[in-house]
Amino acid sequence: MTEVRVLNPNTSQPMTDAVAAAARAVARPGTTVTASCSTTAPASVETAVDEVFGAAGVLAQVERGEADGVDGYVIACFGDTGIDAARERAAGPVVGMTEAALQSAALVAHRFTVITMPPRTIAMTDRVVRALGLGHRCTVRAVDVAVADIESGAGPAYAAFAEEARTALATDGAEAVVLGCAGLTGLVSALRASLGVPVIDGVAAATVAVEGLLAQGITTSRAGTFAEPVGSATTREVWG
Amino acid sequence: MTEVRVLNPNTSQPMTDAVAAAARAVARPGTTVTASCSTTAPASVETAVDEVFGAAGVLAQVERGEADGVDGYVIACFGDTGIDAARERAAGPVVGMTEAALQSAALVAHRFTVITMPPRTIAMTDRVVRALGLGHRCTVRAVDVAVADIESGAGPAYAAFAEEARTALATDGAEAVVLGCAGLTGLVSALRASLGVPVIDGVAAATVAVEGLLAQGITTSRAGTFAEPVGSATTREVWG
Amino acid sequence: MTEVRVLNPNTSQPMTDAVAAAARAVARPGTTVTASCSTTAPASVETAVDEVFGAAGVLAQVERGEADGVDGYVIACFGDTGIDAARERAAGPVVGMTEAALQSAALVAHRFTVITMPPRTIAMTDRVVRALGLGHRCTVRAVDVAVADIESGAGPAYAAFAEEARTALATDGAEAVVLGCAGLTGLVSALRASLGVPVIDGVAAATVAVEGLLAQGITTSRAGTFAEPVGSATTREVWG
Amino acid sequence: MTEVRVLNPNTSQPMTDAVAAAARAVARPGTTVTASCSTTAPASVETAVDEVFGAAGVLAQVERGEADGVDGYVIACFGDTGIDAARERAAGPVVGMTEAALQSAALVAHRFTVITMPPRTIAMTDRVVRALGLGHRCTVRAVDVAVADIESGAGPAYAAFAEEARTALATDGAEAVVLGCAGLTGLVSALRASLGVPVIDGVAAATVAVEGLLAQGITTSRAGTFAEPVGSATTREVWG
Amino acid sequence: MTEVRVLNPNTSQPMTDAVAAAARAVARPGTTVTASCSTTAPASVETAVDEVFGAAGVLAQVERGEADGVDGYVIACFGDTGIDAARERAAGPVVGMTEAALQSAALVAHRFTVITMPPRTIAMTDRVVRALGLGHRCTVRAVDVAVADIESGAGPAYAAFAEEARTALATDGAEAVVLGCAGLTGLVSALRASLGVPVIDGVAAATVAVEGLLAQGITTSRAGTFAEPVGSATTREVWG
Amino acid sequence: MTEVRVLNPNTSQPMTDAVAAAARAVARPGTTVTASCSTTAPASVETAVDEVFGAAGVLAQVERGEADGVDGYVIACFGDTGIDAARERAAGPVVGMTEAALQSAALVAHRFTVITMPPRTIAMTDRVVRALGLGHRCTVRAVDVAVADIESGAGPAYAAFAEEARTALATDGAEAVVLGCAGLTGLVSALRASLGVPVIDGVAAATVAVEGLLAQGITTSRAGTFAEPVGSATTREVWG
Repeated sequence: MTEVRVLNPNTSQPMTDAVAAAARAVARPGTTVTASCSTTAPASVETAVDEVFGAAGVLAQVERGEADGVDGYVIACFGDTGIDAARERAAGPVVGMTEAALQSAALVAHRFTVITMPPRTIAMTDRVVRALGLGHRCTVRAVDVAVADIESGAGPAYAAFAEEARTALATDGAEAVVLGCAGLTGLVSALRASLGVPVIDGVAAATVAVEGLLAQGITTSRAGTFAEPVGSATTREVWG
Repeated sequence: MTEVRVLNPNTSQPMTDAVAAAARAVARPGTTVTASCSTTAPASVETAVDEVFGAAGVLAQVERGEADGVDGYVIACFGDTGIDAARERAAGPVVGMTEAALQSAALVAHRFTVITMPPRTIAMTDRVVRALGLGHRCTVRAVDVAVADIESGAGPAYAAFAEEARTALATDGAEAVVLGCAGLTGLVSALRASLGVPVIDGVAAATVAVEGLLAQGITTSRAGTFAEPVGSATTREVWG
Repeated sequence: MTEVRVLNPNTSQPMTDAVAAAARAVARPGTTVTASCSTTAPASVETAVDEVFGAAGVLAQVERGEADGVDGYVIACFGDTGIDAARERAAGPVVGMTEAALQSAALVAHRFTVITMPPRTIAMTDRVVRALGLGHRCTVRAVDVAVADIESGAGPAYAAFAEEARTALATDGAEAVVLGCAGLTGLVSALRASLGVPVIDGVAAATVAVEGLLAQGITTSRAGTFAEPVGSATTREVWG
Repeated sequence: MTEVRVLNPNTSQPMTDAVAAAARAVARPGTTVTASCSTTAPASVETAVDEVFGAAGVLAQVERGEADGVDGYVIACFGDTGIDAARERAAGPVVGMTEAALQSAALVAHRFTVITMPPRTIAMTDRVVRALGLGHRCTVRAVDVAVADIESGAGPAYAAFAEEARTALATDGAEAVVLGCAGLTGLVSALRASLGVPVIDGVAAATVAVEGLLAQGITTSRAGTFAEPVGSATTREVWG
Repeated sequence: MTEVRVLNPNTSQPMTDAVAAAARAVARPGTTVTASCSTTAPASVETAVDEVFGAAGVLAQVERGEADGVDGYVIACFGDTGIDAARERAAGPVVGMTEAALQSAALVAHRFTVITMPPRTIAMTDRVVRALGLGHRCTVRAVDVAVADIESGAGPAYAAFAEEARTALATDGAEAVVLGCAGLTGLVSALRASLGVPVIDGVAAATVAVEGLLAQGITTSRAGTFAEPVGSATTREVWG
Repeated sequence: MTEVRVLNPNTSQPMTDAVAAAARAVARPGTTVTASCSTTAPASVETAVDEVFGAAGVLAQVERGEADGVDGYVIACFGDTGIDAARERAAGPVVGMTEAALQSAALVAHRFTVITMPPRTIAMTDRVVRALGLGHRCTVRAVDVAVADIESGAGPAYAAFAEEARTALATDGAEAVVLGCAGLTGLVSALRASLGVPVIDGVAAATVAVEGLLAQGITTSRAGTFAEPVGSATTREVWG
């Protein structure tokens, strides 16, 4: 059995359940999907301050995952919070929902759009887009919805995403849509039906990407950037 | 059952067998991997002229695949020959071994190298690297080995690849290696053991990528670039 | 006498006549302009599938041209279909109408726009724009006109191009316009008069570019990418 | 009086003293330079795991600084650890030593080199280089020296930096050198004398940059990315 | 005492007085700000022809400044006219108002806009944006106001700048505004109050940047591009 | 009759004669090639200070050319000194030898190298390479030869260029060579014979490019950047 664990950088149990379900829906028969979340903060990742707490939470979750013998990880937060540290600490591969969503989109569309939320987080998406070099093929848009609204049911968010997506299809040359937040899986099928183009949920994309790396027998390179952090502290040593 | 077909743009049956085996080695339990190849030319894809024949061959293979109800396709030739036409013609997703290998590498290394062959094909790899925007993270190198030599056993190629890879690790900051040719699967485990970094075979990478798109329930967008080519001829109409 | 042959990847004789006339209108006194077209398909190049047939047609035309002792070639199709193979096979220089138009525009304007057709072909133009690196200086737009409409007289197309060009001048900072399709020569003078900016027909631009390379005494480099394809088949060998 | 505080993401008091001294050496007459450091970890910032602890430490230091009425901040760690969160939390401007050093170098040289340490941190520098868009004007190199060695006196590091710098001047076209680590101020004058080109210490560069922003009367924009993180927790709330 | 001289490439004494005042408003206590301007032409820098005269004027001013023992220079013209020659000729550092404004903006905002004037000068700003590599973080806009109107009081210009800035904040994701012309200092405080984001005057930004380089003890590298122009004529030798 | 005038920014009559001859060697039968040079300075263009004088000289030459009814211009100096002002002032098209050489190279080679001289002028070439966006396809190298040595016969320069070119072919993947200085026409045939790849002289390339624009009936756009500089002074008004 292969265990893929979905790491939620925030503390929301409903969102953790939602991303675990999204991962399970696409996982291979032989994969067990588990999920964990941060313990104290952040409630959601909407600011760079939240990302500091979120990255710490991801690192702590990876340390626990390594003790549990987890085979690979998905980071279920748009912006891929804490991914570099997770890659150093985990023996197995780690894939962020943002990078995976962008990669899937690039395989099914010439140009595409990412719709994230709230608007101030556009810079977090830009960071991943630039790291992958995909700026010439996608636009980054945002809807002005708070992450908390998503958790309480995607209803109000649906209309905002659909409208923004239609604008992107009409004016950006976008041919596919990436949903820029974890916990939006519930919007996927309605948006696909309504828009008639691929709509991508990064948690699903990252889950199959991790499974794909495991099937290929590869994990994070230890040759340089992501070598084992032998001299570095653990979250337990620092924060107990 | 899901059928993924590996399309070999050249006419070599041994290479077709080899890439089918490489795909089967990583495929999900529920996936049936089949393979086909071109019928008249090219013997191998080493020139742009070969790519013209190879693209025609890929298109013909996709037309046959659609008649057979194939669910998704892998293009097993470095440079992803014929991929745009294949995406238009196929109902299901199509992934090239080059783009998939580059994407896998970007998930396990900060910088990496592609080692293709022979040197004149570097431009074909550059084309894919630029389409994905990954030029800032990889170098493209080549070994002076003919594709025919690969088919007759990877022996002589092994030393050339190993040496070029070591140079890339030492001087390019590369942390992973992409093998830039189909049919090199036999080199993978020896190179991994010797180099100590991820070594990626694009056929394996593309196979899991196609499966991943199928698991996500998405296929090529029909919204623009890859809309169905309704007015276009078929290879049968043109070449019989 | 120097012979420049204009290669039309599609099978339309009227368009072949039109592009030949466009080339003759700008050619040097000592240049003989001839023209040829594809024989079976495509009727026009509007899809990637069409490009597969168009590239095969271009290659066959070059093979014939080499037998005829042609000195240089123009590829008269936006997207420069088949150009890499043509460069390998031809002894003399080969210039695509897209690359030549972009280069001419860059010599007369800081920013410019390309207006192609139909919209799904934007990706073909993007490919050339990126190969040349001119993305920071041009936008790529499209009008929703079928290539067939052009052949039957440019009337309906004129209004669409003029309107799209005016939008580009007003909103993109464009200072010149490239017509993104062969066979639009008939629109050039009316558009120039109406818009008051340079309007560029790629067939004319490519014709003078080929002549310019011939006058400089240079042709395609044989040092790597475009070395003679000695082991590759000919179209006659493959398709009879 | 204006107070600029130098934030050391690591826990080393000697390094904190060193960077404070480097800042004081360039500060305006009316500026009071203070300094603080992290409390529990990291000992130095050499891994992405260290950056997680370092970013938390920077954020905690900014929270203290805000209580103290600090006017502006310098982040004294190559890679500018924690800078986005610091910008959100601080009322006044925040400048990282990496971005400031790159900007100073761009004002005195056409091309330049950054020499960081140890080699695995090159990716951290790449991140800042790309965020600023300066990849076309600089190379990023590294010497294989541990940060701990720097603290115990720059002696052994000097030779390594001088040699790497000479290679960059000879082979990269570099015309100036950025020292890619805090605590290297002691190397500056010897390297300048020996190399005959500008040698830039980022702590000095960032100090004058913060003062310059204060003199211009500007601070971080609150219009989007760096708006006040009103809903986000504080480090005290999370870690006590 | 340190002397920073503000060089106005045009011949307007009111603008020279205005930029000197802008520099003095931000300079360190120990800095003496002086200013000079061109003698015959241009009246303002609005064309590339004006830049030819402006560059000659800047060079002549630097030659005079060197005789006067000036420590560092600011070029007070958007587009940084003549900066490369000034860097060669001056012993001390030279900073252009455009590059400095862009650098300051990059320290306080994720994305920003430059509003220059008149529209035909956008290419001059693009040149500096590309030299710094900041194209991914800023847009370049223009208002259709003549430079002469600025001199006669910024009144009419204010409304135009405010409106264009609001459009940029709403549609470009801009979080800060750079005023793209010397002599606009008078607009700064009203625009800041009205827009609620950082508004940057390049003369102020360049003044603190020159002071910052002087405080760091660095000046233009003599290692290559900006080596002393020993064989080159002086403006006095050429034009008397 | 069409008159193309070659503008030499420096004062060397031998070099003026050489570039005129280079242009005549490739010009159309119906073209009269004339040439002019600067009057007082610079002796050669090797520094940014030289470029200030060179740009003024080019502008004066264009003013004279316009009075003479010249149809189009070539700027015969690597770096294309003064080209923007020339474009504004001239009714007909203006092409720089650098931009034309880069464009010709891009039509005959996947990658190429520019070999300029002396090394400090690399930044001038970089400026043109970036304006055209060709950085991904060429390297810029330099030989340490003074321009004066070229005038006295290309003998000593030949060996330096040949060696640097061989290095570029072997290590940069270059497939063609651009000679980065006017007056090197004498080296072209020997280098072509020796290297076996296209060797491009920018004066020849620019001559056919100007003729090509004239044949297309297009000249510099007046829509924005290069609109007529109606309010700008003339060199006669400024310098007599």
